[in-house]
Order: sequence, then C-alpha cells, then structure tokens
Amino acid sequence: MKKTDVLVIGGSAAGIVTALTGKNQYPEKDFLVIRKEKEVVVPCGIPYIFGTLESSSQNVIPDVGLEKAGINLIIGEVIEIDPENKTCLLADGEKIGYEKLVLAIGSIPVKPNWLNGKDLDNVFIVPKDKEYLDRMIRKLQDKQKIVVIGGGFIGVEISDELKKQGKDVTVVEILPHILGAVFDKELATKAEEILIDRGVKVEAGVGIQELCGNGKVTSVKLQDGRELEADAVILSMGYKPNVDLAEKAGIKTNELGFIVADQFLRTHTPDIFAVGDCAEKRDFITNKPIGAMLASTACAEARVTGMNLFILETVRTFSGTISNFATALGDHSFGVAGITEDNARAEGFDIITALFEGVDHHPGKLPGTHKQTVKLVVAKDSGLILGGSVFGSHSAGEIVNVIGLAIQNKMTVSSLLTMQIGTPPLLTAPPTAYPLIKAAELALKKTHSNA
Amino acid sequence: MKKTDVLVIGGSAAGIVTALTGKNQYPEKDFLVIRKEKEVVVPCGIPYIFGTLESSSQNVIPDVGLEKAGINLIIGEVIEIDPENKTCLLADGEKIGYEKLVLAIGSIPVKPNWLNGKDLDNVFIVPKDKEYLDRMIRKLQDKQKIVVIGGGFIGVEISDELKKQGKDVTVVEILPHILGAVFDKELATKAEEILIDRGVKVEAGVGIQELCGNGKVTSVKLQDGRELEADAVILSMGYKPNVDLAEKAGIKTNELGFIVADQFLRTHTPDIFAVGDCAEKRDFITNKPIGAMLASTACAEARVTGMNLFILETVRTFSGTISNFATALGDHSFGVAGITEDNARAEGFDIITALFEGVDHHPGKLPGTHKQTVKLVVAKDSGLILGGSVFGSHSAGEIVNVIGLAIQNKMTVSSLLTMQIGTPPLLTAPPTAYPLIKAAELALKKTHSNA
Repeated sequence: MKKTDVLVIGGSAAGIVTALTGKNQYPEKDFLVIRKEKEVVVPCGIPYIFGTLESSSQNVIPDVGLEKAGINLIIGEVIEIDPENKTCLLADGEKIGYEKLVLAIGSIPVKPNWLNGKDLDNVFIVPKDKEYLDRMIRKLQDKQKIVVIGGGFIGVEISDELKKQGKDVTVVEILPHILGAVFDKELATKAEEILIDRGVKVEAGVGIQELCGNGKVTSVKLQDGRELEADAVILSMGYKPNVDLAEKAGIKTNELGFIVADQFLRTHTPDIFAVGDCAEKRDFITNKPIGAMLASTACAEARVTGMNLFILETVRTFSGTISNFATALGDHSFGVAGITEDNARAEGFDIITALFEGVDHHPGKLPGTHKQTVKLVVAKDSGLILGGSVFGSHSAGEIVNVIGLAIQNKMTVSSLLTMQIGTPPLLTAPPTAYPLIKAAELALKKTHSNA
Repeated sequence: MKKTDVLVIGGSAAGIVTALTGKNQYPEKDFLVIRKEKEVVVPCGIPYIFGTLESSSQNVIPDVGLEKAGINLIIGEVIEIDPENKTCLLADGEKIGYEKLVLAIGSIPVKPNWLNGKDLDNVFIVPKDKEYLDRMIRKLQDKQKIVVIGGGFIGVEISDELKKQGKDVTVVEILPHILGAVFDKELATKAEEILIDRGVKVEAGVGIQELCGNGKVTSVKLQDGRELEADAVILSMGYKPNVDLAEKAGIKTNELGFIVADQFLRTHTPDIFAVGDCAEKRDFITNKPIGAMLASTACAEARVTGMNLFILETVRTFSGTISNFATALGDHSFGVAGITEDNARAEGFDIITALFEGVDHHPGKLPGTHKQTVKLVVAKDSGLILGGSVFGSHSAGEIVNVIGLAIQNKMTVSSLLTMQIGTPPLLTAPPTAYPLIKAAELALKKTHSNA
C-alpha cells in the first residue's frame, strides 16, 4: 500500500494552498494531492469565460506550482475514508495511507428539489467543472434570451458577461436588490443601477415558481405570476458544501451542513483537517456558523492548516471569516469586509455607521477620477471597526483589503485615525479627504455626540 | 485684541486637517486658520499642473471644508510668536491671542548656496506657491530643452509631465538611480527604465557643478565635466523645513532643522504644537530623526494633534513616519512603506528579504493584466514586517497601504499569513498567488532554513 505523510483531497485553491504552505513549513514531509479534475478552473474566474476570456483554457490553475514544490499529484477519486486505519480508497481500487488528511473537497451548486423544470434542456448550473462549462458555453451560443436565477456575485458577473456578448439577459433575485445578501442597501442599490445601466434587466424582490417548457426550457414563471421568456436558464442560487465523503466516514458536520473545524481547521476526527468551501465558516464578528464561501477565505484557512499540520502554534490560528466580497462592473467596483449594518443591527450590536463620499484621485480634476464612497460599521462603545464597504474604481478591491486588515487587527476608529495612509495623486484619494479616514472621523464624531 | 481657542498657522494639508480634526473633537472651541496664500495648491498634485491638468486652478484645495466646519480663516502672515503671552503678531499689525497654537508652516525648496548660476533667468524651484508656479509654467512654454536637477518624486513626476508636452527633458540624479533615496535598487532601476522608456533622458550617478549662462541659463555643468544644454533648469533638490518663525520664538529645533515634536506633536514650548513638513520626523522602525516629507504623514500627524489639543490620550499618538511613498508613470506604479533593505542593513538590523513576482488580475489572461511584484523586509528573529515595496499597476498605491497597515500594527509574516485578503479576479492577484502573501511565505521559509 502506498503511504504519504500528508494526503490532500481536492485540487482547487484550498487544496493547492494547503499543500504548498505545508510543504513550505515541513519540507521533509511527503505531500500528495488527489483530485478528480484533469484541469482545475480558477473558481472566481468562471464568470469571465462567458465573455471577456476567449475560452475556459485561459482560466485554468497551472500544475507547475505543485510540481516545482515537489508535491505529488494524482488525478483520481477518493470514494472512501477509513479514519481508524488512516487510509483512503480510490475509485480504481488503490488504497493510500496517510499521517495527516486534508479535506479540501469544495462545494457544489444548489439545484433545489422543489423547483419544477430544473432538469429541462438548456437549464444550467455553474459548477467548478471545466468540461461542463465548455459544453454550457457551446450550448449558450445560439440562445438569445437568458434568465439568470440568483443575483449573487456569480449571477451578476455572468449576466454582465453574457450581456457583453449581446445576449438579452434578465437576473431574477428574491431579495429586494441584487448582491443584497452581502451588501447593505446603499451599495446593493448602486450595483443594481450600474448593472441595469449596462443593459442587464433586473427582476428583484421576487422569487421563482417554476421553469416551464416541453423538453427544452421556454420560460420562467415568477412567484407574482408573471412569466419571463427564456431560451436558456442559469441557476446561480448558491453553493452547498460537498460533504458526502466526509459524512460517510463519520466526520462531524454542523447545522448548515459544513464539516466542523476548529481554529486550526482540525475536524473532530483525529488527524483530519477540513479547509475551504467544505469546512465550517464562522463569522469573525459574531462567531456564528455562516454560509459564506470565498476563495480568499479558503486560502487563508489553507495557510493556517498548512502551517499547523504537524505542530500547532497559537499565533497561527484562523479567527473566522470576514466575508471579504468584491467585484467590478465595467469601471465601477464594489466591495465589503466584516459585518454589514443590517446584519449588525439584526444581531443586536449597538453600532454607529458613517459614510463618506469622495474621489479616488486628487486633485479631482485629474482625468479618470472616479467617485469613491466608504461606509464603516463601528461598535458604539469600544469604537472597534466591525465592517466596511467601498464603492469606487478598480482600486476599491485593495481598499477593501485595507479595511479587512483593520478589522482583523481589531483596530478602533481612533487608532485608524493615527495611521499613515499613503496618498499619491494618480492612485488614491487626497490625504485631506481619504474616504476611509473621513468615515472614521465621522464615526468618532457620532460617538462623541451620542456620549 | 482678538482671541481664539486654537490658532493654526498654515493652510495646507497639515493645517487644514489639524483644524478639521480638532473642531470635530472639540466642537465647543473656536478655531482660526491663518495662511499667507490666497489659494492653496494641492502639494502632491503640483507636478501634474505641468502637463495633465489644464492649469493650476484645477489643483487648488477648496476652502469650503473649513467654512462648513465653522472654522475661521484669515489670509495674512504671522511675523512673530510670543509664547509667554500666547499671542501672534501679524504683518498688518494685528495681534491674536491663542489658547493652543499649531505650527503647520511647511517646507521650502532647497536652493543651495554653493550652486553658481542658481539665480540665472529660467532657473526654477518648485515651491507650493500658485502665483510662482503659474509664472513658471508660462515661462516654460517656449523652452524646449529642460534639465531637471534631482530625481526624487517631484523631479521624476515633473519630468514625465513635461515630456508629455513634447519637451526634451533630462533628469540629473546624484544617486546611482532615480528615486534611489526611498527605493531599493530593484525598484529604483525598474522606475528608471520606465521613465527612460517614456522618453525622459536620465543622467544618474552624477552630481552637478554649476549652472552656466549669461543672464539666462544656457547649460548645466556636471561634476564629470560634461555640459548639458538647457533652455530652462528646474531645481528639485528637496525641501527644508520652514522654521524661521519658530526659531525666532525660541521653539526648539532638531539637528536636521525640524521643530522638535513629541508623540502628541507637542513642541518643547507649552501649548504649541508642530505638524507636517516643519515638524520633526522620526522613522517608525529606527526612531531616528529623518528628513522625509509627505502629505500623508502630515495628515496623520494633524489628526493626532487635532484629537489631543486639549485632552491627551495615549491610544492616540503618532509613532513615527513609515515613509509611505508611491507614484505612477503611465500604467505603472511603484510604492514603498517602512524601511528599505539598504537602510535596514546600514542600520544593523538582522533581516530577511523576500520578493515575489506575480500578476494583478486573475486569471492572468484577463485583458489589462499587469505584473505585480512585492518585496518584504522582515526582522529575522521576530518575523516582524519592517518594510515592503510594490511594483504594479495603479492598484499598487492601495497595496502599499495594506503593507503600511501591517507595519503599523506590528504584524509578523506569520500573522499576515493567517489574514484573509480579498481577491476578486478583475481587481487583484489570485488568492493562490497574491504577491504580498507569497512574499510573506518566502520570508517565513527563509527564517526556517536559516534557523
């Protein structure tokens, strides 16, 4: 029987980064990654193969990183884990022993059982499966009217890409606004306006009843009775953790269906770790289990797992997801990190919010200057920064990271105000009106006036 | 005699932000800003009035912020401070009493006494003086050959702007490479290549001997004997703190000529603060007095001053400048925060450096993808991040801020590796190869292999 020190099941972001970090930390150990896919797609790049990219081949994670690091790779499927004997059984009958096992088995698209018509022709999901996606793109080529069910990030990004290809695209979102699950109303409304402005139709605040058609899908019936014509339907209704393999092996899952994992990403079963979309996510602020799935969170978990595989170290723990979400629509970008105002209020936090609207260059007369708005959610008593969001140009993505780092370092608005933020004219807002800092100032003022 | 609670001398970034933050913190107090200039130019925007902007009027800090906040403004010149009686004398004979005085009197361009020919016609400096700059731009209009002395940020940015106007521009820099005072060799070399590629001639590693001409400047004689023809010369040889007013009042200055200021920006004279370019700068890492002048540092100091004017609070202190410098040349951007490798070694730190070259979008096949390189300087024993630099596209400016926040929060490479960094495809590097994180990983590996 083959044996390896560390066996990683899954070859997407979480698996790769666990193996690379682990090998970096423990170079003397053998690492083996087993994955099903011949080629692995970049998960967050999937929407762009529907438009901007020429083909899915431009959206593949190369294996060269694993090879260079001396990590072994098998294309194959693990069908059974035996935690007692510390072995895995592959579909081809091979057995592999491990000292440490890492489950990086990801997530699968939601395709609700209650949805009539879900198996009609030209109804698609968005799995991380290159062959499926290639087929789907080919089939979409001669379809004109496309209805996208679910206005989360994947739904919105695919809609925008399909619109760029000249399709007639409608997004249906059950929440009052697209991206409404992660953004507060101001930002969600802004994103929705921009998407509509770019030619995508939006039906928000209404759910779907069923998909209609005879063999092929022809329309989507909404809960308010209206029917939208459709040559094709894309279900982007979220993802669920892929945990069958783990559950069969008796590895504990939580109430949301994720594999339970501690601050080192250890499962309840000895020597087995779980990372990425399949692993339990807890909110950094509330510590409650949540359903957020992000490659960036997966990679942070993977680094923590990799570093702690053989030796635990309390300064290297994962403290919960800060749900750092961002995207771009044309020249505009939106992002959020930490808790939103709505969620904070619903949880019962006593908060202050502050919003500052400025510009992303200075002086503002410089060509290419774009509005930049930052909103902060702050704990009223301690002044701790609990969350923040940004609307701006493409630099917004990294500003969300500045906010994310402030949250993860448990900074207060007062300590943020003592920080030096670099402000070169062509790259950022002015030093006198950097929106993040101005929002912190407003928050501080509100704290005083309420004291 | 007029009296005010807080008198701020100087109306550029440091003065404005001190007044605004102070008024925000102490709304019951009267604030008065006195400045000489009718209109205040955005300091770091000055280079762009030589090309990209239509005129200096597009580069003015509006007064509306002060007005809205209820801060009084006088255009006038303070010619004497009487710290004993807590009054200031204006050039027009008026006396104003203060409870707290803030010196935000800035810096003035260096025009060395030893330089023959410095007062010839068409030899310019770059002061923060709109009227001077307007005259200078008019005079430069019919000049073709322009020699810029000093390849720091102002010199490089002005050169690039003048080149855009079709001028024949040469930068002379005494250090081996342009921007060599703040960047390590890799980055300085890269910036220099790009500037040359954009058509600016660079003479680096050579000083100047004198400016020649009869009435008007006609050439620049270099220390190696060569002579560069010149229709105009721009001296961008740095700035010195503007401290005459302070020194006359007996306010203590340090060995570099800056007004001595503590962690609350208090001078040695009771009830007098100093902020911005005129105030002592200490390096965040070494705590040594340094000469770095940055609007971003000035604004951070100003916020600390404003908050501490009447009530000190130890969580609101300024801990030294992290020298966050960045700029853009066309689509390329460069930036640095904290200590450089060269300076760290010269100071005697035991350091590790790590450099990772990646891309700023993912997948890398997305249109507009630009290289992104991050270099970290890390304390070998503790793993503390002491400095970092970025070369990339325009998002580099905010990545420098991510690094700056890591330094100011005293993060180690190990704690940075546990952080979640958002990575949307169109806005950032991939989660699996985010250059800042990869550089931290390499640094950690080097620590291990050296242990």
